[in-house]
Parts: sequence; structure tokens; C-alpha cells
Amino acid sequence: MTTYRAPVKDYKFLIHDFLRLGTKDDLPCYEEASSDIINAVLEEGAKLTEEVFHPLNQSGDEEGCTLKEGTVTTPKGFKEAYQQYVDGGWQGMTSDPEYGGQGLPEALGLAFNEMQVSANWGLAMYPGLTKGATEAIHAWANDELKSRYLPKMLTGQWSGTMNLTEPQCGTDLGLLTTRADKSSDGTYKITGTKIFISAGDHDLTENVIHLVLARIAGAPEGMKGISLFIVPRNTVAEDGATGGNNGVSVGSLEEKMGIHSNSTCVMNFDDAQGYLIGSENKGMRAMFTMMNEARLGVAFQGLAIAEVAQQNAVIYANERLQGRSLTGEKFPDQKADPIMVHPDVRRMLMTNRAFIEGARAFGLWSGELADISRQHKDEGKRKEAVDMLALVIPVLKSYLTDQGVESASRALQVYGGHGYIKETGAEQFLRDSRIAPIYEGTNGIQAMDLVGRKLGQNNGETIRALFLMLTDFIETHKDNEKASKHIALLEKALGRQQAATMWLMQNGMSNPDNAGASAHYYLNLMALMMMGYFWVGMEIRANEMLETGEGDASFLKNKIITSAFFFEHIMPETASLRYKVEAGAKNVMALAAEDF
Amino acid sequence: MTTYRAPVKDYKFLIHDFLRLGTKDDLPCYEEASSDIINAVLEEGAKLTEEVFHPLNQSGDEEGCTLKEGTVTTPKGFKEAYQQYVDGGWQGMTSDPEYGGQGLPEALGLAFNEMQVSANWGLAMYPGLTKGATEAIHAWANDELKSRYLPKMLTGQWSGTMNLTEPQCGTDLGLLTTRADKSSDGTYKITGTKIFISAGDHDLTENVIHLVLARIAGAPEGMKGISLFIVPRNTVAEDGATGGNNGVSVGSLEEKMGIHSNSTCVMNFDDAQGYLIGSENKGMRAMFTMMNEARLGVAFQGLAIAEVAQQNAVIYANERLQGRSLTGEKFPDQKADPIMVHPDVRRMLMTNRAFIEGARAFGLWSGELADISRQHKDEGKRKEAVDMLALVIPVLKSYLTDQGVESASRALQVYGGHGYIKETGAEQFLRDSRIAPIYEGTNGIQAMDLVGRKLGQNNGETIRALFLMLTDFIETHKDNEKASKHIALLEKALGRQQAATMWLMQNGMSNPDNAGASAHYYLNLMALMMMGYFWVGMEIRANEMLETGEGDASFLKNKIITSAFFFEHIMPETASLRYKVEAGAKNVMALAAEDF
Repeated sequence: MTTYRAPVKDYKFLIHDFLRLGTKDDLPCYEEASSDIINAVLEEGAKLTEEVFHPLNQSGDEEGCTLKEGTVTTPKGFKEAYQQYVDGGWQGMTSDPEYGGQGLPEALGLAFNEMQVSANWGLAMYPGLTKGATEAIHAWANDELKSRYLPKMLTGQWSGTMNLTEPQCGTDLGLLTTRADKSSDGTYKITGTKIFISAGDHDLTENVIHLVLARIAGAPEGMKGISLFIVPRNTVAEDGATGGNNGVSVGSLEEKMGIHSNSTCVMNFDDAQGYLIGSENKGMRAMFTMMNEARLGVAFQGLAIAEVAQQNAVIYANERLQGRSLTGEKFPDQKADPIMVHPDVRRMLMTNRAFIEGARAFGLWSGELADISRQHKDEGKRKEAVDMLALVIPVLKSYLTDQGVESASRALQVYGGHGYIKETGAEQFLRDSRIAPIYEGTNGIQAMDLVGRKLGQNNGETIRALFLMLTDFIETHKDNEKASKHIALLEKALGRQQAATMWLMQNGMSNPDNAGASAHYYLNLMALMMMGYFWVGMEIRANEMLETGEGDASFLKNKIITSAFFFEHIMPETASLRYKVEAGAKNVMALAAEDF
Repeated sequence: MTTYRAPVKDYKFLIHDFLRLGTKDDLPCYEEASSDIINAVLEEGAKLTEEVFHPLNQSGDEEGCTLKEGTVTTPKGFKEAYQQYVDGGWQGMTSDPEYGGQGLPEALGLAFNEMQVSANWGLAMYPGLTKGATEAIHAWANDELKSRYLPKMLTGQWSGTMNLTEPQCGTDLGLLTTRADKSSDGTYKITGTKIFISAGDHDLTENVIHLVLARIAGAPEGMKGISLFIVPRNTVAEDGATGGNNGVSVGSLEEKMGIHSNSTCVMNFDDAQGYLIGSENKGMRAMFTMMNEARLGVAFQGLAIAEVAQQNAVIYANERLQGRSLTGEKFPDQKADPIMVHPDVRRMLMTNRAFIEGARAFGLWSGELADISRQHKDEGKRKEAVDMLALVIPVLKSYLTDQGVESASRALQVYGGHGYIKETGAEQFLRDSRIAPIYEGTNGIQAMDLVGRKLGQNNGETIRALFLMLTDFIETHKDNEKASKHIALLEKALGRQQAATMWLMQNGMSNPDNAGASAHYYLNLMALMMMGYFWVGMEIRANEMLETGEGDASFLKNKIITSAFFFEHIMPETASLRYKVEAGAKNVMALAAEDF
């Protein structure tokens, strides 16, 4: 019942016209990625997700995964769809060519990530988890382990997972109890139970490579005693041959609100052979490699679900006849006008649109940062990009996933009662969307990460660099006649953000609860400021292109309209967010816990 | 896994201390409803909902309803629970004693309504629909029909429904095609298909009395040709005896996102005998009797789901150990502190609390209006109350249901990953909550009703009366030292609302799309203003009571803290809403429909 068309045109605009990726810095990932290659990847990615992934989205939700005699089965059609993904060589798209990857830009990988999730979130998670695992192995494992695991994971022949959460600990990983006992051969015996393991087991690949956080016997308590291990479900010999079960089993499948087609497993490790990656007790650092990657991926999930929910709501709004336009009949030959004529329906659709296109620009820019941070020849530039990316990742993860839920909910609302019925698919989008503000660090954790860690990194140099980037931009464009109104609104938002930052510095030190109580509002204020920055940037570029006659005039004019909508209908929230930041902890913490 | 405790203490405060219901006006419904009776009803209602309704909530969701050979079966235990409701005499609680009701205040009925929905939304809907149907019959049917139907409906022996929606029309009822052919005996033969009929059929009662909108052969097109009929599932003889099937059957059960334990039916009427109520072609007017009642009920559903979701999230927040307080360990003897110590968890719980308690005051006041509008001896007072109620019903319906969803979502977020798993029940609350912004008129329709119809009623006299009520209140209390800060913030919100009203008057006339585009923001601005009015009112009353030593000091102090939270963390949104109102339709309507 639902359909999906990948936003190839918008990505082409962002990549080639707006961010002009590959033209500003001398990055190896763009050596092979000419404009033509990029366009071909976008178009092929669109085809795969539209034609292979999406048709299985509703049936996958309905059927879900099953566990029978220890074996997890994915919904009908998933195996074949995944095989097409493998055959197309998509798994290693952005990975290191030394291990069989194709070394394409991360920015392009994120674009494809959006398409996969829009088309079929549950299916997309299987290769998504593999990507996170391969990044961690690539960054932290020794050469031998890399050679043994990466090639088969980068083809998609094997998949990967992240095993962090245990029944007694999610956010507070310091409490974890999974044990690692060192064997005489230098490997470890891993024993413990992990929960909420996405793509924990399935029938798509011949082996599943678990990355597992565990505590080596005798290690310090808390976060400082955690190490990271590769634990394959089936043993892997030194020559890479797959053997029997390695003491890894599925305890049960979780019954969830959504993403039913992804197997969320309780995993039991029973003296399973594990291989340390990174140093002993330094597992958290290695885990964060995977986490940062994953958080960016999750941010794009928020965007992705908004996109597909919006597309279907738009189709419905143009087809459903109900009532008449307030300004007179628009289709007098029909019994009623399509609901697209009603301003409140438009308001919901424009709100989604302004979120989606702004978030896509913001998100893709973070992909650019990721590429610069890994590949720029100038170490200083790499470092700057690493820091800036670290600063914006919590903002992207939290804002894009919260708004993903809101957008899916607005899209559902467009359908009226039909949105509440399973058949139309709108309610699945909302159910699926609701996981993203939770996993890979709840959005509350993202906000604390932003104000408690990222703001202060390098003695505040990065946040100052961000403010400077915006100040320079405002300075450059403030006399741009067409954009000056929105530049002024951006400047106002920047002023609010700077004032809020000052408030946090002054009040968060004296009472850390002030920082904790304001973090959520501060993060959202920053998100809106960044959205405003990208919107006015796109608007200016669209005006330039219209003047020079480049591009599709109607597409560019719609960008300008949507920017105006953003500044008039969404950006005003910065006014109230600043007040909320400065409300602080007082009335948040005043009630006795037992009085709630 | 979930629990529920009815908010009896809060209702006692609101009824006896804050609104002082029954002491200000000479209303017949309070003649028998002494304080003791009211308290007894609240306590008995609490018992029924906590002990009988709530234990069936999760099992009811999981099992759902089934249709087999034309017969709908409700989940296990529902029949017995409903019978206890009937035996307790709850169905006729607020209805006309002439037909067997108990004539208790509507305000008290709304309080009990909240409890039922918190405890078990799906189950609560069966008697809830009966209530709406009996109101319409009472208001519009002739004495003979009233005598035939009301007594058995008011005991709960028969249930009722509302049949409006058809596949091609929900909001736009003018498009409906269900046919009514007049028979020689003055009754009608009803033929057509209705969809989304809540509690459409079930095994709880021996008969289901459908109220059906249909078009009499030869009637005018559109809304002006619609009539309302009583159509019993089983025939009812003049002496009240129940006979065989009256040509009414269930086509199918809808598969929905939530409220699984309520049977949402496709109903087929095939030459079913129907009895006109009200006049021919005046069905919409009669329908609105039911609608107004129902919209208030739905508003309370938003509040109700927020309450039960919050209660369970609070329990989880006090039990779940994770991380340490930012201001130092609070439970050094435990491995971690409960997450209740974290400011961002508190922020979510306080936001819910400020919504719930403010909305309860606002909602209960509307119950007072309902009682005055029906029973006041002064016709002028009745009329004023009718109008004021009409003005605030769309505000209550839209704001309380939107915030019901948001609150359920925040409650889920408190659980982290565990909130996404069915076991904890948090996700059911969110799924159930999502219907309320849709049914009984989508929230977009509520906003249009407010700005397009209610603002202008009596040439704007009612909105002016509302403003005057607030101005008087502000004037009376502005020198109250303890409340003056919040009084000033309320005054600011009132100023914004008045400015927005002026803007609407000036710009909505010239272009109705301006009114349509701003309606949603305008409604939310008004909701916040009203919430602020009730919060500062409760705060002032709590301070008075603390001074005189009445009441529970800790309860009263928590009211004052929560009021402060409301004014600092939620009320600031009025600032941005005013900007949004004045953004108007321009960029909302600018895109071509096909460009979305």
C-alpha cells in the first residue's frame, strides 16, 4: 500500500550545487568518485531500495522474525533482498579498499543509508550493524584479526553486531558483568547475557560477528574495566574457514513496538571464544568508534522515516477528497476538493518538508566532516573536523530522531482515521520511528554529551569555531537583499545560542543539575540554529542558480519557499527555547522523588 | 506489569478546594451530591478502575477482539468487568433520573471518565459510546423513543454507538450516502456501510443501539440533507422486548495501531428499521449534541493516558538504577542511583505532571460549565455557560489529546530501551493515545472550529467574556506577592492571545487561508493561556490553604512547585506561538500541490 521514491534530485543538489562535495578539499575518497559516479551510485541505490527493499516493508512488519529451535528466521523475501544488496557490492561502499571496500565518501554512504531506512528500516539495520562493527574492527583490531574478519564482512557474507546492553545496564555500562577469562592462547572465554541486540541473529548470512563488551577477570570496577571483543557466532579458523557454534545462542526475541522485521535478541555467551580488540580495559574508547558512526546513522534514520512517511501522506493528501477550499472550490467538477487545499494539512506537510530538507543538508554536511576527518592531508584540518563532528553528532542524533517521530506522527495525522489503520502503513512508520530517540544513547544522553562533554572540549575552542563559522557566514551575506531577512533571523538565533551558552557556563559549573536540566533545550536551540544556517545557505544558493539559469527553476523556487516557511513557522521556537534554558534546575529538582 | 492508582486526592482538591463545585451556584445536580457523596463516588470509582478495569488492560491489548461468524468477541474478562460496571450502576451516573439516571454532576462524570480511560481505554469506550448515544436520544428523540430506549441504555443493559464515517467521508459528512427510505408506518429502512465504528458490536450487552446518520430519499445534497436515526441491532418491540436481527451486521474488524480491545467495526445496514430522531434533514444538529459530549470525553482521554503513563514511568524512574547524580552519589550503598536523580528524566516527568494537573483543572472547569449550562436557574447564566463551553471544547479536545500523545511518548522515553518492549506497557499507552487527536473531529478540525466558528459566535461576545474573566482575575491578584511573577506571565500570554486574535480578525477576513494556516497555533496559544490561568489559580489557592493550615501541606507545596515549573518551562512557548500565528498562509500555500 505504501510507496517510496528516493530523493535523488535533492541529494544531487546538496552534493553538487550546495555543499559541492569533492571540489573543495583534496580527499582521496573523491578521486574515484566523480560526479558521474556519485550520480550513478545514487540512482542505483534508489533502484535497489525502491524496487527490492520497500516492497517488503509492510509484510516484514506484519510477519516479524521467528525463533525456532535456536534459529532466527527473517520475514519472507528478506534473504533474497539481502543477497541482492550483497551482489551489488553495497556493504563495503565506503570502507577501506585494502580489505575489499570501495573507499567511496561517507557522505555518499549516508545518502544511501537514508534510502535504505526509508525503504525498509528493519532490513536496513542488518547491513547497518555490520558497518558499525567493521569500523570498530578496522580502527582497533590488529592486522591479523582485520585480515581474518573484514574481507568477509565487507562483502556482506558475514554480518556484525554490537553487544553492549545487559538487563541491569543500558546507559550505565559501568555496571556490566559479562565476563572474559583469558585463556593460555591469548584469547578469552566470554560468558554473560546481553539484551536488545539488534540483528543479533538471523538467516541472512553464514556467520554473525559479535562485538561484545565484557569485563576481564580482575579488571577495575566501572567503565575503566571494560574491554571489547570479537566473538563470532561460529568459530573462524585462522584460514578464515567457518566452523561450529562458538557458545553463542539466542535466548529469545524481544516483542517490540516496531521494527519487527529486525531480530532484537537476547544473546547468551557461554564460554564463547573471544578476541580482544584494542587494549585491555580500553573497550569504551573502541566502542565509541562504533557509537559515533552509529549515532550518525541513527540521526539519518530519523530523517529517513520522515521522508517516507511524508511521501505517502502527500499522495494521500492529493487523492483524498474531503471538504472545500476556504477560498472557493478548486475542483468544482468533483464532489469535494483534495485535502491538500486545506491550510492545516499544508501546515503539517510543510513542517515535515522544512524539517526533512534542512536536516538532510545538516546531516550531509556532517558526512563531509567525516570524510575530512579521516582523509584530509592537513592534520590540523583533520583534527578540526573530528572535533566539529563530535560536537554536532549529539545534536543531529537527538534532533533528527525526535523530529523523525514528530514528522511520522504529523504524516499519520494527515490521513485522519485511515492513518490509525494498519493497512495504510502510516502507523508502522510512527511505530518504527519511536526507537530512534532511544537507542545508541537516549536523546537525554545526547543532550548531556553535548553540554557536559562536547561544549567544553578543547577548552571550548570547537563551539567558538562553530559560532565563528556562523558569524562569518552572516557577515558575508548580510547585504544579500533577498536573504537579508532570514540572515537577520539567523543572527538572532545565534545571539540566543551564545547567550544560552554563557548562561550554561555560569550556572552549570556552580550546580551541574542546571546543565542537566537545560541540556535538552540547549541542544534543540542549537539544532534550530544549524537548521537555519543550512536553510538560508540553500536559499542563497538557489537564488544564485536561478539568476545564472542553472538547475531546475521550479525545484529551486520550492527551496526558497520552504526556507521562508522554516524561518516563519519553525525558527520562532528559538525564542522560547532560550527562556527554557535559563529556567535551570530549580523547579525540575524540587519535588521529593516519592512525591511524584 | 503496569499499575494504576486513581488521582482521587487531586480530584478532591479540585472539586472541594479549588473550583468549590456545588457551593457557588444552586444546581440540582449538587442537591444530592454532598461532599461525602462526591468523595464516595470518587473512591468507589477508583476501586472499580484500579481493581477491575486495569488488570485487563495489557491482556486486552494483546488479545484484541475477534469476529467469527458475524459475532464479535471481546477479550477475556471484559464481559465480567463490564457486568461489574453495570451492577455498580455507573452507566447512568450523570443522566436524567426520569429515565433511571442518577443525575449526578457532569463534572464528577468526567472525573470518573478519566479513571476508566487511564485504567483501560478499550474497555472504557464501550460505556463511553453509550453515554454519547443516550445524550443525543435524550435531547432529540420523542418521548416514546426515549421511554423505549433510555432506561435499558442507562442501566448498561444495552449499549450505544455513533455511526458517522463512511469510506468516502469522515470529516466531510456532506458526502455521505447511507440511505433512509420512509416506510408507511413512519419508520425508515436504512441501507449503507459505515466504517470506523467504535464499539460497533460486541458480546457485552444483549443489544447495541446504533445512532446512524443517513440521507432520506429526496433530501438536499450535502450537510443539509442528513438525518439521524436510532437503529437497534436487534429489533425492539413497543413493549421493549428484544427480537431478532434488524438487518445490521459487522463487515469486518479494523486492524488498528492501538485500542485493540475495543471493536472498531465496519457496519453494514441492510434495510434495517430505523427511527428518526430530531427533524428530517436536521441530523447534523442532533449529531453535534453527541459530538460535543464526545469531544469533552476525548479531551479527558488525552489527560487519562498521560496520567497512567506517567504513573508507571515514575515507578520505573524510582526503581531503575543507572548512573550517578551530577551533584554526587545519592545512594552510595547501591551500585548506582535511581534515574529519578537525573535532571533530564525529571524534566520529562515534571513536564508531564505540569500538563496533567493543569489539564485536569481546565477540564474539570469545563465540566462545571456543562452542569451550569444544563441546570442553572438563570437562563442568561445557562446561555453564557453554553457559549463558553462551546468556545473551549475545541481547545480542550485538541490540546489535551496532542499533549496526551506527547506525555505518553515522554513516559516511554523515561524507560529507555525497555519502553520500546511490549512487556513494560509503555508502548501500549503511546499506541492507544494516538487515536485521540484523530477521532471525534481531527485536531485540525478543532482548530478550524475554534477560529472559524467559535471565535465569531455572538459577534465575539464569548471570546471577549473569556478575556474579561482573565483580566478580572489578573486585576484581583496582581498584588498577591507570592503569585505576582506568574500573574505577570499570564498577563503577557493574555496580551499575546489578544494580539493574535486581532491579527486573525484583520487577516482572516481578507484571506480565509490565513485563518486556516494559523488556527493550530492560535488554538495552542489559547490552551497555554488557559493552563496558565488555572495554574496560577491553583497556586494562589494552595498558598491560602497553607496559610490557614487546611489540607495536606506537602501536596499543596508540590502544586506550587509544579506551577512554577509550568511557568518557566512550558509557558514560554506562547512567545513563539504568537510569531507563528502571524506567519499566516503565504508560505503554507505557496507550493504547487504536485510539487510536494
